[in-house]
Order: sequence, then C-alpha cells, then structure tokens
Amino acid sequence: IRSNNHLISVNLPKFQKDMSHNYAVIMAGGAGTRFWPTSTTKHPKQFLDILNTGETLLQQTYRRMALVVPEDHIYIVTSEHYTDLCAEQLPQMNPDHIIGEPARRNTAPCIAYAAFKLKKRDPLANFVVTPADHLVTNEAAFVDAMQTGLDATSDRNVLLTIGMTPTRPETGYGYIQHDQVSDWSDRIKLVKTFTEKPNLELAKTFIKTGEFLWNAGIFIWNANTILSAFERDMTDLYNLLSSGWDMLNSEDEAAFIQDIYGRLPNESIDYGILEKASAVYVMPADFGWSDLGSWVEVHEQREGDNLGNTGVGHNILMFNANNNTINLEPNIAAVISGLEDYIVIQSEDRLLICPRSEAQSIKRFVGDVKLKIGEHYV
Amino acid sequence: IRSNNHLISVNLPKFQKDMSHNYAVIMAGGAGTRFWPTSTTKHPKQFLDILNTGETLLQQTYRRMALVVPEDHIYIVTSEHYTDLCAEQLPQMNPDHIIGEPARRNTAPCIAYAAFKLKKRDPLANFVVTPADHLVTNEAAFVDAMQTGLDATSDRNVLLTIGMTPTRPETGYGYIQHDQVSDWSDRIKLVKTFTEKPNLELAKTFIKTGEFLWNAGIFIWNANTILSAFERDMTDLYNLLSSGWDMLNSEDEAAFIQDIYGRLPNESIDYGILEKASAVYVMPADFGWSDLGSWVEVHEQREGDNLGNTGVGHNILMFNANNNTINLEPNIAAVISGLEDYIVIQSEDRLLICPRSEAQSIKRFVGDVKLKIGEHYV
Repeated sequence: IRSNNHLISVNLPKFQKDMSHNYAVIMAGGAGTRFWPTSTTKHPKQFLDILNTGETLLQQTYRRMALVVPEDHIYIVTSEHYTDLCAEQLPQMNPDHIIGEPARRNTAPCIAYAAFKLKKRDPLANFVVTPADHLVTNEAAFVDAMQTGLDATSDRNVLLTIGMTPTRPETGYGYIQHDQVSDWSDRIKLVKTFTEKPNLELAKTFIKTGEFLWNAGIFIWNANTILSAFERDMTDLYNLLSSGWDMLNSEDEAAFIQDIYGRLPNESIDYGILEKASAVYVMPADFGWSDLGSWVEVHEQREGDNLGNTGVGHNILMFNANNNTINLEPNIAAVISGLEDYIVIQSEDRLLICPRSEAQSIKRFVGDVKLKIGEHYV
Repeated sequence: IRSNNHLISVNLPKFQKDMSHNYAVIMAGGAGTRFWPTSTTKHPKQFLDILNTGETLLQQTYRRMALVVPEDHIYIVTSEHYTDLCAEQLPQMNPDHIIGEPARRNTAPCIAYAAFKLKKRDPLANFVVTPADHLVTNEAAFVDAMQTGLDATSDRNVLLTIGMTPTRPETGYGYIQHDQVSDWSDRIKLVKTFTEKPNLELAKTFIKTGEFLWNAGIFIWNANTILSAFERDMTDLYNLLSSGWDMLNSEDEAAFIQDIYGRLPNESIDYGILEKASAVYVMPADFGWSDLGSWVEVHEQREGDNLGNTGVGHNILMFNANNNTINLEPNIAAVISGLEDYIVIQSEDRLLICPRSEAQSIKRFVGDVKLKIGEHYV
C-alpha cells in the first residue's frame, strides 16, 4: 500500500460471482478546452497529469479499472486523433483495444459501438463505462462500488448509473433523483428523474431532500441490455452499427466504421437512452470523486500553501498573494505579487491570467485565441 | 529624416569652433535589475530594445553620440563582462574603444579612467559623459545641447551638467538647483545645489520655485578640467590612475588596470566631485529625456491601446484589463483578464506579475529569486 492516496493499491475482495465476463470501456475522446493553456486540442485534459500525481488522468483511470477487471478486458474509445497518445501513455495495452472514432460524436454512439464489439467478443459481456478524465481519490471504495454494480448487472436486465453523494449545492453537475431501494439490492435504488445542471437555489433544494445524487457519468450494464435499449430508443444508431456486425473485431472493422460513423447521431447516452428507459437504477457511492471540470476543481483538490495558493513549486515566489491557482512548467522561475483568487497558467508558449471566478469563461477565451491569434495555440 | 522619432536623423548645424577635440564616453556598466525578468545580470537593460524601437538602448545612445562627435571619438566604459556584448551590438566600433572595468565601481573611477585615456590621446580632449540606458526622443534638441555644451567647455575650466526641465514632481530623480545665468552664456547657469531624490512634498516645492532641474547624469568638460578636479578632490584615485600614465593606450594598459582597479573607491562623480567643486554649471535642456528607470517609465513612454495597456501585441488578448504593462516574447499567446495597473513580464523561462505600483520592489524580488530559486534566473 502506497501512502499517496492517488496511487494507492487496493486489496481486491474475493469475487462473489464469476467475474470473467466483466469489461471496462474508458471514454477518452474529450477535447476539453477548459484547462487551456495546459490542455490543448492536440493534448487534452485526459492526457495530462493535471494534479501532478505522477500519472495522467487516463493512466489513473486505466489503473483503477485494472483493479476491477482483467487488463485484457479494458477498452478505450477515443478520437482517432488520440489513439497514438493513448498507446504512448498505456504501452501495455493491446492496440486493438484502443478504438479511434473517425468523427466526434457524443457518448451514445461511442457506447453503442463498444457494446457491439464486446458482445461479439463475449455474448455475456457485462461492463462499466467511465470517463477518462475524472478524479477518484478513494480507490478501494471505487473498486467496491464497481464490483457491486457489475455483480448486479451481470444477470439482470437493468441500466445502472453511479450517483455521487453530493457534498455541496454544485451547479456544474447534473443530478439524479432516486426513488425507493430496489427489491434486489439494498445499495441500489430506482431512478426517479435525471436533471440538467440546476441553478443554485434549485441545487440547494435538491440537497435538502436527500434524494438527489450527482451524475458522475459512470454506467454499468451488460451488453445485451444496453443494446436492447439502443434498439428500442435509438433505432437508427442501432441498425447502422448492427449492419456491420460481421466486420466487428475483424480487419474490415476500420473501413466499416470510417464509412458509417459520420452518420451516427450526435447524442448523449443520458438523453438518448437513460431518460427514456424505465429500468434505470442508481447506486449512491462516495469514492472521492470530482469531474475536475475546471481549474476551480483542480484548485480544490490540491493542497495549498499557507496562504491557500496551489500549484506553487519552489521556483515560484509569491508576495501578498492568496488563494491563487498556479500552473507553470517546472523550469519557469516566477514572481507573483498582489494577486488573490486568480489563476495563472503557463504551458509552452501559452499564458493565461484571469480571476478564478472566470474559469467558466476559458472556453470562450480559447475560441478567441483560435480566431484572433491562431489555431496553433489551442 | 525618418518619421519614427526614436530613429530620427538630424541635420547637424555648422560647427562654430574647431570641434576636432570633442569626444564621447558612454557609461554602459549597469547591471540594472529593475527590468527583471526582461533584463538579467548577463543581459542588462542597456543591451535591450526595451521600447521595441529596433535598436537597443546602447545602440540608440551610440548613434545619438555619433551625431555629435566623430565615431572614432566615441568610447564605451563597461564591465569586462559586457565588452563582448558591446562589440556584438556595435560591430562598427574600434574594440580598443570598448573599455572593460575589471571590478564594478561607481561613476567616478570610470570617468577618471576615461579622462586619462582621452588626455593621453589628445591633450585638448573635451568630452561628453552619458549613460547608455536613457531615452532621448528629440535628438535634434539633444545634439544642439551637446554642441552648445562642448563649445562652452572646450576652452573653459568649468564642469557642466545637463539639467532636464522637470515636467512633474518626480521623486525618483536627483535635482539640480541653479543660480543666475553665467556671464559667458545665456543658456548656462551656475549650480547652487545638488539634491538627493526628494519626497513628494519637497519635489512639488522644487517645481514651484522654477530653480530646479532633473539631474540627467550627463556631463560635459574637458579632460584637463575634470582631471584637475580629481587631483584636488579624489587625490588617491587620481594618483593611482596617474601612476599608469605611461601604460595607458598601450598593450600594458590592461594588466595595469587589472592590478589597480579593485583599489579605486566606489564613488559617484556627483558625490566625489560635483558636490565639492565650485565652478559647476548646468545647462537646462528639454530633449524628451527619460532615465527609463523602471517599468513605470517604460509604460509612460509607450503608446497604449484604447484601454491604456502597453506592450500588447496581436498575440495577447485582454479582457476587462486596463492600463497594464505587458512584455511577453513575441511568440507567446496570452489571455489576460481582470487586471488593472499590473505589469506582466515574461522573458525566456522567467515570469513576473505584480502591481505596477510595486515596480520599485522588483530589485528586492530579484534578490529573492537569486537566493531562493537560483542565480541562473537573474
């Protein structure tokens, strides 16, 4: 057991069932601009060690999933532009398990595609879907939740989501409202509603009821169940992918996917499937999760100096400076004076200085940089 | 005539006297830390094009002096660490005219040393002493003042300083109080007192009297006069340098200077000579002078954008940002939001962010960088 909680090793509890049909699908296609200038289109957030743990977020996610399923059962779905980066960061992976999407689509096509491939490999495939760029600080609790979930979905026709116990009235997440506990597990509850990001007042109400959980974007189901849902609720998507069944997991797959992918709908799994399906369940969990959605979350996750500045190494001198978020390349010597609640981020030939309250404006800044300075910088 | 006022060419007026004994000594030994991180010990201010004119301050100063005296009559006194930089920036110069001091001393030893060398070359030598790192925007007025001064000192036993007509109660400069006009020139007045940098109240009083001028650190005199003053008021310095008379301007000079320079007093010409001498005069002048003493002066000299930000190129996007001083290398793409009256300076692997009101603290910052981060960065 390592002492750094980002690198902790976990003693796996004994499998309760036959877990040999369990798989993991890591979605690593995001081109997140909210961490510009550290992240760029060429090198987005999931490929960065944004918390300086020694691993990129993708590497953390992979290692975490390898605590749950055999390594050969892990797949990554990403943009075709990032397959090389994935292989570089995870040289131990079978390259066939790094799936490149020829077009940027939302989560529904990516999950349907992976489900078809898994079902073809293993008709009893049962899998976790997880984003590549989130933070989990309690890996033992994470592994326990995943195993409980996989255990539940291995032989049940249910769609299971993971709901994080909320710790604050966050307006940046979607919420899942749950109903009574399911009759087959005291840890898994029926979903009543999915909600969009609420305003602060509504978020406070959500918290008060005790019925709302954060939607972490982590899903567990078996391939047959999710494919049935696609067949029912996203029939065109299902039919297009289904038409290539014979080619999946063969050398003809790439050409087939190249041909059809652009025609798949740009739809999220939440909107396309979960909000329509009936047997959707949620397992409340608490494994130190954050979506690391912006520098605000990174600031909160990092330990600060005695004045609350985070990301300050020995090459950075702060004077009259409190509660700032600093990210500079390690060779940069910096003096920062008279700033409070700012973010100061430098990467290569890119620099951002703005109040942390404007972290949500970075996407717009990046749009302007692309337009007015040049694509090279984003 | 070029249109850029930093690069203006000047039609020289006709010489009134024989000007063939006129020389210029440019003092270029400063290791100014007030422009860190753009300036460093290895590459101080005088070697930078801090206003982005196309010339470094040393190159500007040299070209300006070449409008006053023949190029072969220009000397530079600098640290021995900077002689190569001088030769690089002024390849047209005779390397023998770039004098390297083996130890950092104040202005008195440097001027005495140059005066001895000039007198040995030309017993009637008459010369201007000027810092290398100041700004002059009206070169025609500068040339006129220098010629008037050299004309006056060529055959008079007087020490002449140049006093800039003050435009504000500046507390960063020393002042020269003048008395009545001399009986031999209506442009040159007797000096009553030299003052240290005043506080604001005193500076305001100075301005009100109309008798005070800014001490620009530019001096004009003939070699015999200034050497007599050294002999009288800094006798040890005079004697030490004088003992090497035979070796000056010969191949033995370097060894002699190496031997004695460390024993010369660390004294300014103002304190060592001018404040003690009687026949000290000042010529009021107004040639768009600034000592460019800090980023504050650079900010004032530069044209700002419509919100008063200066140094903002097309690679820098500003949002809600007013009146900032920006200096980034041209390849850097930057977004700066929510800052007012700050300086943001980047050079190579060095970054400074602080309120412009702290420009005078940069010297202290640099001390800390040297101590806590490493000498490499200063």
